[in-house]
Amino acid sequence: MTSSNLRINIDRLIGRIEALAEIGAIDGGGVCRMALSDEDRLGRDLVVNWMRELELDVSIDQIGNVIGIRAGREIGNPVMTGSHIDTVATGGRYDGNLGVLAGLEVIRTLNDAGIKTRKPVGVGFFTNEEGARFAPDMMGSAVHQGVSDVESMLDVIGVDGARVGDELEKIGYAGSTETGNFRADCFVELHVEQGPILELEDYEIGAVEGVQGISWNEYRITGMSNHAGTTPMRFRHDAGYVAAAISVEARRIANDMGGNQIGTVGVTELNPGLINVIAKEALVTVDLRNTDEQKLQQAEREMSSFIEQTCKAEGVTFERRTLARFEPVVFDQNMVSLVAETASSLGYRVKSMPSGAGHDAQMFAPNCPTAMIFVPSQNGISHNVAEYTQPKHLQAGADVLLQVLLQKSE
Amino acid sequence: MTSSNLRINIDRLIGRIEALAEIGAIDGGGVCRMALSDEDRLGRDLVVNWMRELELDVSIDQIGNVIGIRAGREIGNPVMTGSHIDTVATGGRYDGNLGVLAGLEVIRTLNDAGIKTRKPVGVGFFTNEEGARFAPDMMGSAVHQGVSDVESMLDVIGVDGARVGDELEKIGYAGSTETGNFRADCFVELHVEQGPILELEDYEIGAVEGVQGISWNEYRITGMSNHAGTTPMRFRHDAGYVAAAISVEARRIANDMGGNQIGTVGVTELNPGLINVIAKEALVTVDLRNTDEQKLQQAEREMSSFIEQTCKAEGVTFERRTLARFEPVVFDQNMVSLVAETASSLGYRVKSMPSGAGHDAQMFAPNCPTAMIFVPSQNGISHNVAEYTQPKHLQAGADVLLQVLLQKSE
Repeated sequence: MTSSNLRINIDRLIGRIEALAEIGAIDGGGVCRMALSDEDRLGRDLVVNWMRELELDVSIDQIGNVIGIRAGREIGNPVMTGSHIDTVATGGRYDGNLGVLAGLEVIRTLNDAGIKTRKPVGVGFFTNEEGARFAPDMMGSAVHQGVSDVESMLDVIGVDGARVGDELEKIGYAGSTETGNFRADCFVELHVEQGPILELEDYEIGAVEGVQGISWNEYRITGMSNHAGTTPMRFRHDAGYVAAAISVEARRIANDMGGNQIGTVGVTELNPGLINVIAKEALVTVDLRNTDEQKLQQAEREMSSFIEQTCKAEGVTFERRTLARFEPVVFDQNMVSLVAETASSLGYRVKSMPSGAGHDAQMFAPNCPTAMIFVPSQNGISHNVAEYTQPKHLQAGADVLLQVLLQKSE
Repeated sequence: MTSSNLRINIDRLIGRIEALAEIGAIDGGGVCRMALSDEDRLGRDLVVNWMRELELDVSIDQIGNVIGIRAGREIGNPVMTGSHIDTVATGGRYDGNLGVLAGLEVIRTLNDAGIKTRKPVGVGFFTNEEGARFAPDMMGSAVHQGVSDVESMLDVIGVDGARVGDELEKIGYAGSTETGNFRADCFVELHVEQGPILELEDYEIGAVEGVQGISWNEYRITGMSNHAGTTPMRFRHDAGYVAAAISVEARRIANDMGGNQIGTVGVTELNPGLINVIAKEALVTVDLRNTDEQKLQQAEREMSSFIEQTCKAEGVTFERRTLARFEPVVFDQNMVSLVAETASSLGYRVKSMPSGAGHDAQMFAPNCPTAMIFVPSQNGISHNVAEYTQPKHLQAGADVLLQVLLQKSE
């Protein structure tokens, strides 16, 4: 058997996905393993045990990233894969986990076949990709690749008041390996699409050409609390109205710009939040994304201008806090072509496409040839307990990953 | 001294306002005495003690309303005043309390002057006027005057899961006096305006001609949670967007209809409420008010139609729960004129005006001649710890109340 005929074992892969999904399991088949929580620790322990069973050389760095390396015939930078195992509060079992566990399945397949690659092969999982507990997201991979500073990230305070550095110590993943200087030979990440395109257009594999730029801002609006029945409309300073107008404007911007522009307000909190009291404070988040940096900046300008004008007209003030800002990322053309050609050669229908979500891979892109492999998400559902990818698609993605890693490590 | 020269003692009145405001005091000079809470019990105990010191005949009814009666020379229905002592979560010290404590000050003034009126004079405070913990608002006065059924109100469950009947028992105010058949000779309620009109137009007294109709609905929107970065705009079922659109529409309806139409969304809650997750559920409340029932119905129709269309277009569902619906109330013309003429004769500048807020008085209006006296609220602020009315205006209102009660009870 030549290595191009090598295939992963889908039952073994699904077994690992199911075992990991039991940690932090929630109703409906979903998972809650927020970054650096007790559940995250248990999930990490399980994956690290698997890495050691596979005889990988495991290291933990200062921000808690875990990398397992399989030695090659030569010394050098490893051909890398990996993703994350943290989830949002009501997450699914595939997001992130698939990329890590498929990486382990590739290692197991190489081990079983007795293949020693020329270059080392590495599998990693990166701390706090989701950003649901601590902002920004993709924290671990950003520090790992020198995009973010480790000290300032350790000082980040989460939505529950916890500090990243303290939580890392608490769960036992404050490692000693230095961050910021790890260089991979190349990086390829397998991930569920988390959107509906592959399924709707009947593709089995997505060859990801790049990642949308992301702009996350939080606005705290301060108006004046007053009686909802006795305060004429013209005398109001209604923070709740401004929050609502921002949400509607995010939709308008996305609709009017069209193309890849999207806009979401996922957080709206009113204070005091009573039926007959005009809100004195509102907290809203604005999530804008585009594959084109110029268009993303246009969306940001339109939103900023709208918020300034609306606050002025309503007689309220606002404070803005930027939670994340990533420019669009363009992946290496040769790596993207390799993914597409490998998938085609395995008989899969491949679509070249951008990623709507941020991924750890984008942090590697400036430093080494990088690409991603997408597999379909049923009904496009993700960040939801109902997230699901069919076994045949899991197999397709993991086999493409295996063959890409084999070609890059020889 | 004739009784028309009789005046209340402002220091005594302010002393009682301050003493009551110490119970449930919160930062900024405000008060939190939510209906049937432990703080409400302490406030009630204080006022009942004052009623007994004034030698009033105190009764407590099945919904916890407390009435103190001062006997007249003749037996008959009492000339009534009163209001409420419950507050919103971040309330002021005048809303409701002023009407009750000014009533007690009138009694004290009559006692000191040795005046025995022909008809009895009564002062009451009514359970849960605010509706902030238990909906609907004006619960006690509605049951007292036979508008609402006592059994169904005792079964109301509050925002914190507590039941009205259980909480009444717990605080010792589940009285034995039957509700629904108390008839007053007439009813006049002194209250702070809770709006900016009197101050802006430089009036000292408002002669309230009636009360706006109130329409309170709660909408629970159910969409689908999904990833904010990967779900194209056209595939979204965003409950948060619909909630925001409802809030903006409430403002549009009020602005477009103009006149007395007002609209407020004070509650917006999103689930899961994360920056990068499209909300699967949203809870919003819609508060619409108008002095004209036909226009209020028009506003309700426009809102209902908008919500149906918006939910359909977004592919989300909604459930509506009506929390309160009161038609506009028109007060007795003779009573309103008596208030206006009495205030003028005392030298005050009087404006005839509608009430924007609901008040206990409106429950009496179908059963006896009813009116209200408004005094200015500084900066129009109410339902806010900064609520304030100047001592000279407290005095003005209480003196008008005294003289109206004197004239009606002779």
